[in-house]
Amino acid sequence: MKHSIDSLQITLQKDTTQYSIDFFTENNYKDLHSTLIEKINKRSCIFITDENVYSQTSFFQNSDIISPHDNRNILVLPAGEENKTWESIEKILDACFHHNLDRSSCLIAIGGGVIGDMTGFASSIFMRGIPFIQVPTTLLSMVDSSVGGKTGIDTPHGKNLIGAFHQPEHVFCAKHFLSTLQFVEIQNGLSEMIKHGILGNKTHFEHLETLLATHSLLCKETKKHEISSEKHSLFLHEIFTLVPESIRVKKHIIQQDETEAFGGVRGFLNLGHTYGHAIELLSNFQVPHGIGVAKGIICALETSQERNIFHSPLDAQRITTIFTNANIPTSHSFSAEQIHAAMKHDKKKKDGKIQLILIKEIGEVTYQYL
Amino acid sequence: MKHSIDSLQITLQKDTTQYSIDFFTENNYKDLHSTLIEKINKRSCIFITDENVYSQTSFFQNSDIISPHDNRNILVLPAGEENKTWESIEKILDACFHHNLDRSSCLIAIGGGVIGDMTGFASSIFMRGIPFIQVPTTLLSMVDSSVGGKTGIDTPHGKNLIGAFHQPEHVFCAKHFLSTLQFVEIQNGLSEMIKHGILGNKTHFEHLETLLATHSLLCKETKKHEISSEKHSLFLHEIFTLVPESIRVKKHIIQQDETEAFGGVRGFLNLGHTYGHAIELLSNFQVPHGIGVAKGIICALETSQERNIFHSPLDAQRITTIFTNANIPTSHSFSAEQIHAAMKHDKKKKDGKIQLILIKEIGEVTYQYL
Repeated sequence: MKHSIDSLQITLQKDTTQYSIDFFTENNYKDLHSTLIEKINKRSCIFITDENVYSQTSFFQNSDIISPHDNRNILVLPAGEENKTWESIEKILDACFHHNLDRSSCLIAIGGGVIGDMTGFASSIFMRGIPFIQVPTTLLSMVDSSVGGKTGIDTPHGKNLIGAFHQPEHVFCAKHFLSTLQFVEIQNGLSEMIKHGILGNKTHFEHLETLLATHSLLCKETKKHEISSEKHSLFLHEIFTLVPESIRVKKHIIQQDETEAFGGVRGFLNLGHTYGHAIELLSNFQVPHGIGVAKGIICALETSQERNIFHSPLDAQRITTIFTNANIPTSHSFSAEQIHAAMKHDKKKKDGKIQLILIKEIGEVTYQYL
Repeated sequence: MKHSIDSLQITLQKDTTQYSIDFFTENNYKDLHSTLIEKINKRSCIFITDENVYSQTSFFQNSDIISPHDNRNILVLPAGEENKTWESIEKILDACFHHNLDRSSCLIAIGGGVIGDMTGFASSIFMRGIPFIQVPTTLLSMVDSSVGGKTGIDTPHGKNLIGAFHQPEHVFCAKHFLSTLQFVEIQNGLSEMIKHGILGNKTHFEHLETLLATHSLLCKETKKHEISSEKHSLFLHEIFTLVPESIRVKKHIIQQDETEAFGGVRGFLNLGHTYGHAIELLSNFQVPHGIGVAKGIICALETSQERNIFHSPLDAQRITTIFTNANIPTSHSFSAEQIHAAMKHDKKKKDGKIQLILIKEIGEVTYQYL
């Protein structure tokens, strides 16, 4: 059934943008395809995707989404965070020129955060900005990067240090993509959903807590690189039904603070990220983003306890347990000195000061300096 | 005397930006320096300039603007449109990382349109956007590129095809820079001022007409690469006093149409540009921008006459004469077919259609398709 989960509406004041996030719960891409074709509405466009999505999902196969239309093109990029570079942006821009796109064209990101962030960035600078549509294919990108307009690339100095704020025209989340993911990618997304619960919605945390307690054995038994199969079907469905609740936490925050003003509430979304980015950087990006965030949240929790901001040992236990139930590792092997050094390039510093998001209680966070 | 010409205020609705353009009429950089130091206000910053400005003006010499402050740095880029590339943007971004700039820092462009467009673009994508200050050093960049928020770089496919809309925090126009320019650069600027008169302000056109009739002999006798000297001093002063009037035409238009919506009034500013860019491209950028625009205006005038939009032979003569008096060549050697082919990559096309700005009368223009 199409749109069995209600759409969310994102309304921004500063750049007078409004866009909807639609959810597709069926076990195929039919409704997603027809909705996309309707929204593209004869504009010339390029679908930007990566090798994994292209080969491991049937989105581009068995479909009339590309072949009958000369003005709908595909660009398949190499997969992985290590390709989130200017070289990939150049490939997208070259494709835009090659296919004679103009200011009335649009780009469509079919992929995870890397593809979404790069497609968004390329569309923000091609002819000083053309529209783009986000079709996140990972749980992480559904609940995080596809919403909020942050786009960008990594540099040797750190992640996402070059980019732009550029809001998508539409976001389409389709459950069917989740069944094509490796289990570690589900964990990445869960980690970010748990973050949303901790920083802004206790009820969302509780829903996730119940879900993960129920499925903890499944999580424990599932191998990291296992492709989710039939036995995960119910689990994935239940996760997907919590996606709108998770996005709503982010929506509430970005509507108040579109461009992450210093000291603005958008910084709360960085819970676990200042530590997490440092850990990812130190691991030479071997630690996946969501797992880095989980580790970062535990670092933030420990600092919150040390600074007497977080008082409940029981709730600290609940935060540790929810990650354990999802079989997400939260320990790391880096020293405080190493982490603080790696934090130096974080965008969230001002006048050299590094800002930390610390936890007051489940559902509420606060700012402090390192 | 400081600010003897009143400041202009640019107020934008869409991105809720407001900034002022201040004018400095003295024959040194003292007031400009002190105003800049005040506006930088201890933020870490980088002055971005080019070899010409660095060596041929005394802005960075005899000044306390850099040396006593570790947090004020200079980056000197090679001069010329051929360097308006991603490689130069990378140099700026590398300098930002090298000097540990963060989201509270700012960039300051001290140069012509190339430096201003690149500094603006780099500041729009460094950490998803930091403030920048425009200090245009050429007449062309004072009346055109420093105002309006268009930033970007060239590509092998054409000019300014990659970029962003990013408004400056301040614009400072100092007359003293004009005396360091080659005469051809004064002509570039005059050409754009004449464009402003033709497209939106008959009185401005008449002021320029009088000015250039008065100084036509001087213009004829001045060699292309001559550095303006004492004998040009009055001429430059009179030109500078018309700069605010010229900017006001642009201000009026961009306040109605910030991001050049298709069919929006901002397109009027492209008078002479669709033809002009094509001529510049065909000449392999040997034709300077302002001269290209002059040639483009004459092309637009001819098309306007052919299409029975422009009726007055007398006014056609006045448009030709004003360029002749400025000693700006308006002829070119390319065929209509060559120009139409080169126009194909113009950003201003929609669904493959190329939009032309045609002249109804001096002070009023209109849209038509090629």
